[in-house]
Amino acid sequence: MSGAFPPLREELRGIEPYGAPQLDVPVQLNVNENPYGPSPEAAADIARAVGEAAVSLNRYPDREFVALRAALATYLNSSGGSAIVPEMVWAANGSNEVMLQLLQAFGGPGRVALSFAPTYSMYPEYARDTLTEWVAGHRAEDFSLDLDAAGDLVLEKQPSVVLLPSPNNPTGTALPPEAVSMLCEAAASYEPGGVVVVDEAYGEFRRAGTPSALELLAVHRNLVVTRTMSKAFALAGARVGYLAADPAICDAIRVVRLPYHLSAVTQATALAALRHAPELLGRVDDLRVERDATVVWLREQGFEVADSDANFVLFGRFADRHAVWRGLVDRGVLIRETGPDGWLRVSIGTAGEMAAFRQALLETVRQTTDQTSTRDTA
Amino acid sequence: MSGAFPPLREELRGIEPYGAPQLDVPVQLNVNENPYGPSPEAAADIARAVGEAAVSLNRYPDREFVALRAALATYLNSSGGSAIVPEMVWAANGSNEVMLQLLQAFGGPGRVALSFAPTYSMYPEYARDTLTEWVAGHRAEDFSLDLDAAGDLVLEKQPSVVLLPSPNNPTGTALPPEAVSMLCEAAASYEPGGVVVVDEAYGEFRRAGTPSALELLAVHRNLVVTRTMSKAFALAGARVGYLAADPAICDAIRVVRLPYHLSAVTQATALAALRHAPELLGRVDDLRVERDATVVWLREQGFEVADSDANFVLFGRFADRHAVWRGLVDRGVLIRETGPDGWLRVSIGTAGEMAAFRQALLETVRQTTDQTSTRDTA
Repeated sequence: MSGAFPPLREELRGIEPYGAPQLDVPVQLNVNENPYGPSPEAAADIARAVGEAAVSLNRYPDREFVALRAALATYLNSSGGSAIVPEMVWAANGSNEVMLQLLQAFGGPGRVALSFAPTYSMYPEYARDTLTEWVAGHRAEDFSLDLDAAGDLVLEKQPSVVLLPSPNNPTGTALPPEAVSMLCEAAASYEPGGVVVVDEAYGEFRRAGTPSALELLAVHRNLVVTRTMSKAFALAGARVGYLAADPAICDAIRVVRLPYHLSAVTQATALAALRHAPELLGRVDDLRVERDATVVWLREQGFEVADSDANFVLFGRFADRHAVWRGLVDRGVLIRETGPDGWLRVSIGTAGEMAAFRQALLETVRQTTDQTSTRDTA
Repeated sequence: MSGAFPPLREELRGIEPYGAPQLDVPVQLNVNENPYGPSPEAAADIARAVGEAAVSLNRYPDREFVALRAALATYLNSSGGSAIVPEMVWAANGSNEVMLQLLQAFGGPGRVALSFAPTYSMYPEYARDTLTEWVAGHRAEDFSLDLDAAGDLVLEKQPSVVLLPSPNNPTGTALPPEAVSMLCEAAASYEPGGVVVVDEAYGEFRRAGTPSALELLAVHRNLVVTRTMSKAFALAGARVGYLAADPAICDAIRVVRLPYHLSAVTQATALAALRHAPELLGRVDDLRVERDATVVWLREQGFEVADSDANFVLFGRFADRHAVWRGLVDRGVLIRETGPDGWLRVSIGTAGEMAAFRQALLETVRQTTDQTSTRDTA
């Protein structure tokens, strides 16, 4: 073999694996984790549930994860949905596996996946991994969608999958229901049509009055709403993503899913966490308050800040955002250098972590103002 | 949208999801599970480890699963390997995810994956899901490989992935090291070359004197040896597959893996089970004895039986294998209707389960002999 060993596909050569830098600093506000771990009671219940599952781990897990689908349906009906039944629920190892499965089923060669930039940087990777053509329209200056332009683009490109994060990552922007409805109708107007995936990974953090797309499931058969237990349920380590959609969409995914993709341990963990939903979700309200306070504070300091319905805030603009990111790291605070040039994203942590963030940011900006133009140019 | 809702890829329409029939009968000998669950001590250790992981489940898992890779390397060095270091180990949610990742990295449009039938029925699905062309050569009458023909086929088709289960599923046939070496050399003789994946999912069950392909890793840079914790470690429910290969191959897989694909719960479970390896693997010896006894008994009854290095046995031949399978189900014993026409596969269970199998088989054959020709035509 030549120097080309190993024989990686041509289009993958030289690509760095996806993943935020993992640095060992005290304040981790870079990957939108929930800063609050499960309570001791929830952790003990998870351990007990896994202990019960462990004695029969020699057997394959329930391939259809019937109990988990039922529990997720019940939860969704308490979180913006109604009349969601287990047959409308699907789950996988993180919502990224859910997305990959959606593109394996509905994307592929000769088909298009479409979203609107700036948006979640994994989307084009799912498209690449499934050989789906990736088309990115553009969001308006305030990161909202221009509905006419968005609708026109869908009609022009006729995507088989439209990816609509709401709230959007990394901007925090939620979509109004009329936008979802309009794009669902557009995607149903050509053959064979497209599915519209509203990615509500951060849906539980939306502000009061912001509706969930779950409300529209009864109206649009081609609508898929994805959620995750990583954020609101503080369960990023357990890797449980899920969706609600027409049962025919769930059945289609079953063709491409790897058999037994969801382990008995994962099913037991998720079921135990769902039993503790009120307690785990209680922290969401604290984080929403902290998020709103962070937006206010950043604006008071003169920064530009995107409205946020998520557990993170995009702010800027910086002539040299990398210098600001670096300045924060030097002060023990890790945030994320992502989004459009000039912007930075901070995840909402505990009150103490946000105080550390505020102080580090002020110090960094004071220091760098002398060297480069920063918020003064915003 | 037309009646084609949902807009599933054309080539997936009408396909039934993969999966053995799941029937609720007392004796389950159909999916090659280990009949012995983890010991109470192992189950308790798994629960304790997950309990410890649970308190920080709000954080994403270690993306590189460093501790697990090290523990798996140590284990492999005690199970046929030597000088295997953590950088040579990769793991995923079941060996089926490992296989999918290998094909995502090294397969794809314009590339070929090749194996030799009869073989594991999931292989063509991995190829289909990654848009890789699937080529199946043929095994000899005794399910061994004709080395000259196999080598010629590799040189002709120039696959980027060669899949060689050893022992083979569903026949139980192990590959001699010279076959692996020859095919590794063949796959290294063209550009850009192919990786040769020896699937040792059932490797721990091989008979005394049957070597593992792990011994050849130092010789062939394009060799990948996959294993699973599902069978020998009695951990099918936990979904942990893994591989050993050149570090450059592991790095290539990192480009296509979904970030954080292996949950903290899965990592904790696998690490706990590896601490109990001697105890869990002790049962493997019992199963090998039972397997050999089953082969002897089936031959004594006049059946044709494939030599087996696995925890299952392929036997036949039956003019109407479905009738025999059905007869066993009617008597509370579920085996698998798979492999070449006329053959059936039975997983090795406990002594009691195998006694039930023997009795059910004798009764069934006695009954069906009057109606159809069975072993008399073998």
